Amino acid sequence: MSNQELEELRAKVDEINLQLLHLINKRAEIIQEIGNIKTKQGMPRFDPIREREMIDKIRANNNGPFDDNTILHLFKQIFKASLDLQEVDNNKKLLVSRDRHPEDTIVTVGDTEIGKKPIMIAGPCSVESEEQVSIVAKSLVEQGVKLIRGGAFKPRTSPYDFQGLGIEGLKILRKVADNYGLKVVSEIVNPADIEIAPEYVDVIQIGARNMQNFELLKAAGQVNTPILLKRGLAATIEEFLFAAEYIVSRGNTQVILVERGIRTYEKWTRNTLDILAVPIIKQESHLPVIVDISHSAGRKDVAIPIAKAALAAGADGIMVEVHPDPPVALSDANQQLDLNEFNSLMTALKKANFF
Amino acid sequence: MSNQELEELRAKVDEINLQLLHLINKRAEIIQEIGNIKTKQGMPRFDPIREREMIDKIRANNNGPFDDNTILHLFKQIFKASLDLQEVDNNKKLLVSRDRHPEDTIVTVGDTEIGKKPIMIAGPCSVESEEQVSIVAKSLVEQGVKLIRGGAFKPRTSPYDFQGLGIEGLKILRKVADNYGLKVVSEIVNPADIEIAPEYVDVIQIGARNMQNFELLKAAGQVNTPILLKRGLAATIEEFLFAAEYIVSRGNTQVILVERGIRTYEKWTRNTLDILAVPIIKQESHLPVIVDISHSAGRKDVAIPIAKAALAAGADGIMVEVHPDPPVALSDANQQLDLNEFNSLMTALKKANFF
Amino acid sequence: MSNQELEELRAKVDEINLQLLHLINKRAEIIQEIGNIKTKQGMPRFDPIREREMIDKIRANNNGPFDDNTILHLFKQIFKASLDLQEVDNNKKLLVSRDRHPEDTIVTVGDTEIGKKPIMIAGPCSVESEEQVSIVAKSLVEQGVKLIRGGAFKPRTSPYDFQGLGIEGLKILRKVADNYGLKVVSEIVNPADIEIAPEYVDVIQIGARNMQNFELLKAAGQVNTPILLKRGLAATIEEFLFAAEYIVSRGNTQVILVERGIRTYEKWTRNTLDILAVPIIKQESHLPVIVDISHSAGRKDVAIPIAKAALAAGADGIMVEVHPDPPVALSDANQQLDLNEFNSLMTALKKANFF
Amino acid sequence: MSNQELEELRAKVDEINLQLLHLINKRAEIIQEIGNIKTKQGMPRFDPIREREMIDKIRANNNGPFDDNTILHLFKQIFKASLDLQEVDNNKKLLVSRDRHPEDTIVTVGDTEIGKKPIMIAGPCSVESEEQVSIVAKSLVEQGVKLIRGGAFKPRTSPYDFQGLGIEGLKILRKVADNYGLKVVSEIVNPADIEIAPEYVDVIQIGARNMQNFELLKAAGQVNTPILLKRGLAATIEEFLFAAEYIVSRGNTQVILVERGIRTYEKWTRNTLDILAVPIIKQESHLPVIVDISHSAGRKDVAIPIAKAALAAGADGIMVEVHPDPPVALSDANQQLDLNEFNSLMTALKKANFF
Repeated sequence: MSNQELEELRAKVDEINLQLLHLINKRAEIIQEIGNIKTKQGMPRFDPIREREMIDKIRANNNGPFDDNTILHLFKQIFKASLDLQEVDNNKKLLVSRDRHPEDTIVTVGDTEIGKKPIMIAGPCSVESEEQVSIVAKSLVEQGVKLIRGGAFKPRTSPYDFQGLGIEGLKILRKVADNYGLKVVSEIVNPADIEIAPEYVDVIQIGARNMQNFELLKAAGQVNTPILLKRGLAATIEEFLFAAEYIVSRGNTQVILVERGIRTYEKWTRNTLDILAVPIIKQESHLPVIVDISHSAGRKDVAIPIAKAALAAGADGIMVEVHPDPPVALSDANQQLDLNEFNSLMTALKKANFF
Repeated sequence: MSNQELEELRAKVDEINLQLLHLINKRAEIIQEIGNIKTKQGMPRFDPIREREMIDKIRANNNGPFDDNTILHLFKQIFKASLDLQEVDNNKKLLVSRDRHPEDTIVTVGDTEIGKKPIMIAGPCSVESEEQVSIVAKSLVEQGVKLIRGGAFKPRTSPYDFQGLGIEGLKILRKVADNYGLKVVSEIVNPADIEIAPEYVDVIQIGARNMQNFELLKAAGQVNTPILLKRGLAATIEEFLFAAEYIVSRGNTQVILVERGIRTYEKWTRNTLDILAVPIIKQESHLPVIVDISHSAGRKDVAIPIAKAALAAGADGIMVEVHPDPPVALSDANQQLDLNEFNSLMTALKKANFF
Repeated sequence: MSNQELEELRAKVDEINLQLLHLINKRAEIIQEIGNIKTKQGMPRFDPIREREMIDKIRANNNGPFDDNTILHLFKQIFKASLDLQEVDNNKKLLVSRDRHPEDTIVTVGDTEIGKKPIMIAGPCSVESEEQVSIVAKSLVEQGVKLIRGGAFKPRTSPYDFQGLGIEGLKILRKVADNYGLKVVSEIVNPADIEIAPEYVDVIQIGARNMQNFELLKAAGQVNTPILLKRGLAATIEEFLFAAEYIVSRGNTQVILVERGIRTYEKWTRNTLDILAVPIIKQESHLPVIVDISHSAGRKDVAIPIAKAALAAGADGIMVEVHPDPPVALSDANQQLDLNEFNSLMTALKKANFF
Repeated sequence: MSNQELEELRAKVDEINLQLLHLINKRAEIIQEIGNIKTKQGMPRFDPIREREMIDKIRANNNGPFDDNTILHLFKQIFKASLDLQEVDNNKKLLVSRDRHPEDTIVTVGDTEIGKKPIMIAGPCSVESEEQVSIVAKSLVEQGVKLIRGGAFKPRTSPYDFQGLGIEGLKILRKVADNYGLKVVSEIVNPADIEIAPEYVDVIQIGARNMQNFELLKAAGQVNTPILLKRGLAATIEEFLFAAEYIVSRGNTQVILVERGIRTYEKWTRNTLDILAVPIIKQESHLPVIVDISHSAGRKDVAIPIAKAALAAGADGIMVEVHPDPPVALSDANQQLDLNEFNSLMTALKKANFF
C-alpha cells in the first residue's frame, strides 16, 4: 500500500519539478528583457536595491516548511543564475576563457610561436654583467633556445638585497640578445616603465608579487608587447585568470601564463608546483601556459623529471634559471642550473621528444 | 515609456517569485511525507537512483534560456535543501550542534566544571620521572590549578624519537596526581587502550594526529570518561565538529574541544593559532573549547598575550606545557614554560581577572 | 673503568669546545676589521667570490670524519653569523626592529596617538555616496571614533567588479570627514598617486595585494603622511616587516601595521586571523599593530569576541567595516557591520575597558 | 695599502678556518669514541644533561664579539652534526632512505612487480555490491590491469556518511578478484584488523587520515603483506618517509608510497597534487611511489594529462577510481571515472608508451 502511496507522491514531485523548471526559465526570459532595456538606458545590470525588494517580498510570503534562510539561499542561487545569464548575453564572459575564444592563442615572439609547440625560456635570475649574460646566451644558442630571460628589476623581500641593475641591466640583455639572435624576457615592476620597456625587451614579465598589482596589469594591457604573467604566491587559479583578464580586457591579447608554484607548508621545496593548474588552465583558457621549474621547486636536483612532468601535463614550455657559476650568483644561488646541468636538461627533453 | 515597461516586467518577476516560493515549499511538504513513509519502512532518505530519474526528466524538458548545467545546479540546491529538511525532521542534526542542545555542556572532572568558568590545564609534554612530575604538580597546586597533563604515550613523527613511558608513565601521573589532589589528562593512542585508560586518567586526550582516527573516536564514545579532543593539524572546523560527533553519537557526551593551531606556511610559529575558531565553535556547538598555547605557538615568549587573547575570545580554558627544566626535556624543549614562567603566566591571567 | 675513560673524553671535548669558542670569536674580530676597511672603500660586505675561495680551501683540507657537506654547512653558519655581526656593526639591522629603536613608535593623526592606547578605525568598505559616508560618520562621532576608513580605489579580483569612485571618492571622504571632525584613512594603489594623496587623506593605506608592490612602498617612503600597511594574503611575518622596512628606510617612519588574516584551507572564515602575529610583531618591532577584524573573518557574527581577543593580545587598535545597509553594499556585503552592530561592538569594547 | 692589509687579514681568516676545521673534526672523533663506549653500556647517545653542562661552560667563557645566542646557535649546530654522525655510525639512518638501500625496492604482488615498470591500480571508491565490483573487474581485465582497489572500511568525515560494507565488502572484493584473476588493494583502519586482513586482501592500504596513526603503522609492520601508504592530508614529505619508517623498521619492507595531493587554499581542485614530491621521494627513498589521480584532483576532466605528468615525473604507477555509474555512487561521485573514461585513460597512457 505505502509503495503505491510513495509512487503517487513521487509523481507529484515530478510534476512540481517541471512547473519549477518552467517558471525558472520563464523568469529568466523576463530578466533578459529587463536587461535589454537597461542596456539601452546604460543602467547597470545588478541592482542591489531591487534585489532587496524582491527578497523582502519573498520573506514576507514564506509560510514554510522551509525557513527563511533556506528560501533566501535558494532564491539567491536563482538570482545569480539570471545575472550570469545576462552576462553571457552581454558577452561579459571572460575574454581569456576558452568559451569566448575556443582556439589556442599563439603568442609570436620573433619566429617563435608560443602555444604551438613547447618552448624553452632560460637565463640567469639576475643580470650581473655582459660577460655573464653572454656565456649563458652562447649556451642557449647551442641548444637551439630562442628566448633569454634575465632580471634587471628584481623585486626583493628585503630593501637591502641586490635590487638588480635596472635600465643598465636591460641594455646588457638587449645587446647580448641582439649579438646572439635571441629574444629578451625581463620583468617590469613600475607601471610608469611599461611604456619604455618595449625598447629593450620582447616580452614583459609581470612577477608573482605583482600579479594583483592592478595598476601594472592595466598598463600592460595598453602596449602591444607580449606579457608573461606569473601566478601569485598564493593566488587561486581563478584569481590568476582574472589578473590576465585585466590585461586582455584593455586590448593586449598576447599573454603567456606561468605556473611557478604556490606557497604551502612543505619545507623540502621552495614552493609546491601546482601541476593540476596546467591542464585546468589549458581547459578554461586559450592562453599559453608555461611552467617555471626554478621558482616552483627552488632546487635543481629534480629539474629533469619536473620539466618532463610539466610538458606531459600539456604545458607550452618551460622556464628555467641558468647561471655560469650559480654558487656566486647574486640571487637564488641554489636553484639556478649551471651550463652542464642545463645541457643535460635539454638533452633529456629532446630525447623524450618534447623538443 | 520604457520605465513603465520596466515596472511591468518587474511585477511579473515578483509574481513568478511568489509562485516559485509556493512550489518550492509545496515540494518540500511532499518530500516530508515521502520521508515519513521511508522512515516507517526503514529505508534510507537519500536515494541516488531516484534523484537520477528526476534529473533526467528535468533535463529532457528544459527548453532554456538556462542551459542544462545551470538548471541542474539550481535543482540540486533544491534537492539538497529538501534533504536537509528531512534531516532536521529526523533529528539527524549534529548532536554537538547548539541547535540541538542550546545550553553549554559542562564537563565535570572532580570538582572542576569545564565550560562554566575558565580553567587551566598544565604539565610536562612527556612524563619523564616521578620527581619531574612531582615538581610540576607542586607548582600547579600553589597556583590553584586542578588538572595536570602529561604524555605517557607520545605519537612522534620519527619511530626513533622518545615514545613516552607508556603504562609506566600513566602510573606515575596517577600516583603524583593523587598525592597532590590533582586530576590527570593524558593521551591514549590505541583503541584497545581506551577501556583501561580510566584506571589511570580522569580525562582521555585524543591528539591532533588522531583526530580522524575514527576507530579511536568510536572507542572513546563508549566510555564515560571525559574526552579532550584536539583539532587535527590541517582539519577544518567542520571536520573537527564531525570528529566530536563520532564520540558524542556513541554516547559519551563529555567532550572538550582543543584548538591547537593549524599548519600554514608561516615559519616564525610552529602552527598558526586559529583564534577565529574559538568563537565560531562556541557559536556552533555547546561543547567547551580550550586553547593549547604551547603547540599552537611553539614558542613561549608570547604565552601571556596569547593566553589572554584566547580567554578574551571566549575560550573555556588554557592548556600549557610546563617543565621543571625545559632545555633538558625529552620532547618539545623550546615550547615548555619553566616554573617561573608558569607562575608569571598565572599571575598575569589572575591580574586580568580571567581566573 | 669505562666511566673514567668517558670522563677523560668529555674533558677533551670541553677543551676543544673552548678552543673553538676562542677561534670563532677571533675570526669574527678579523672579519670586523675587514668590514671596516671595506666600508672605507665603499665595497659591499658580502663577497661571494671570496666565500667561494674559502669554501674550496676548507673542502680541500677536510679529512673527516665529517663529510664535506656537514663541514660546509657548519662553516656557512659561521660565515653567516659573521656577516650578521657586520650588519649590526653597520647599523643595517632593520630600522623597524625593536633592537634598533626600543621605544614604541607613536603615529600621530590629528589628536589621535596610535600606539599609545587602543584606537578604532571604522567605515564602509567602498565609498558609494556622500550620504552613505555621512551616515557612518555620524555614528562614528557618536561613539567617539576619530578615524574613518573608506575605499575610493578598490583593488578587485575581477576587472568587471566595482573599482571604486577614485578621486571622486577621496573628495567625498575629505568633505564628510571635515564636516564631522574626522581623519581619513584610504587606500592608494598607484605609485604615481602617492604624492597627491595627502591632499585628501590623513593616512595612506597600502592594501594586502600591494604589500610587495615595492614601487608603491618606495613612493610611500617619500611622503610624510602616515602609512597603514596591510599584511599580504600569504605573507610571512618576516616579509611583512621587510615591506615596512622599504617605507621606513626611505624616510617615512610613520607606519602602522595591520594584521588582516592569512590565506589557509579553512572554509568557514574568509582568512585565518594570525593572532600570534600581534604579540610577535610587537616584540620584534616598535611600530603599532592594528587588527582588521572584517577582512580576517569575512563574517561579522564573531566581531565582538575577535576584537576583544585582538586587543587582549596587545593590538593597538581595531579596524572594521561599517555600512548603513550592508546587504546592498557594492562590495563585501557579508562582512560589513550595520550601525546597530557597530554600536554593540563599541559598547562591548568599552565595557571591557579596552576603550 | 689597505688592499695589502685586506690580503693579510684574509690570510688570517683562512688560517683560522683550517684550525676550526681541524678542531671540529677532532671533536667529532672523540664524540665517536664516547658513542662507542655508550653503545657498549647500552646508554642513549643523546644526553641532555651533559649538553647543558657544555653549554654552561661555553657561555661562561664567551667574551665576544659574538653574543651568547649566536655562539650557542653555532655550537648547537656542531653538537647536532656530531649526533647525526653517531646515528650514521650506528646505522640509524632511515631504513627507507636510498643511502641505506641504494637499489629500488620492488614490491611483488602476484606476478606484478611494483617499482619495475609503471602499473595501474583501479576500482571503485567504495565496494557497493558484487555486481558493481564485477563490472569494474571485467573492464580492468580487458585493459590488462592486475590490481583492483575498493573500499570496504571507509573513513568518512561524518559518522552519518556511508561507512562501507566492512568485512562483507572485503569478501566481495576477494571473490570477484579471484574470479577475474586480480589482486586486491583495500584499506584497513583498525590495528586489530591488520592480522586478519591478509585473508582477504593482497595489499593493505593505510589511508591519508591514518598516516600518523602510529599504532596502525606498527601493526602493519608486523605482517608480510605489502602496505600501500598514502600521504597525509597536510603531511610533509619528511613526515611521510618517517611514517613509512614505522612500518619498515618493524620488519615489513614491502611498502608502496602514494602521493595523493595536499591540502591548500586552492578551490578548483580537491587537493593540490604535489608533483615535486614524486622525484624527491624517488631520490630520497628506494620505495616505489604511486600517484592517486582521483583524490588529488577531485575532478576527472584532467585525468589523462595528470596521469601522464605523474608517470613522466617518475611515478611507478597510477591509482584511479572507476565506477560503473559514478553519479549514483555512494561516495566521491564527482571524481570517479566511468568505464568509457577509464578506457580512454588506458588508451592514452598506452599510446604515450607509459604502459
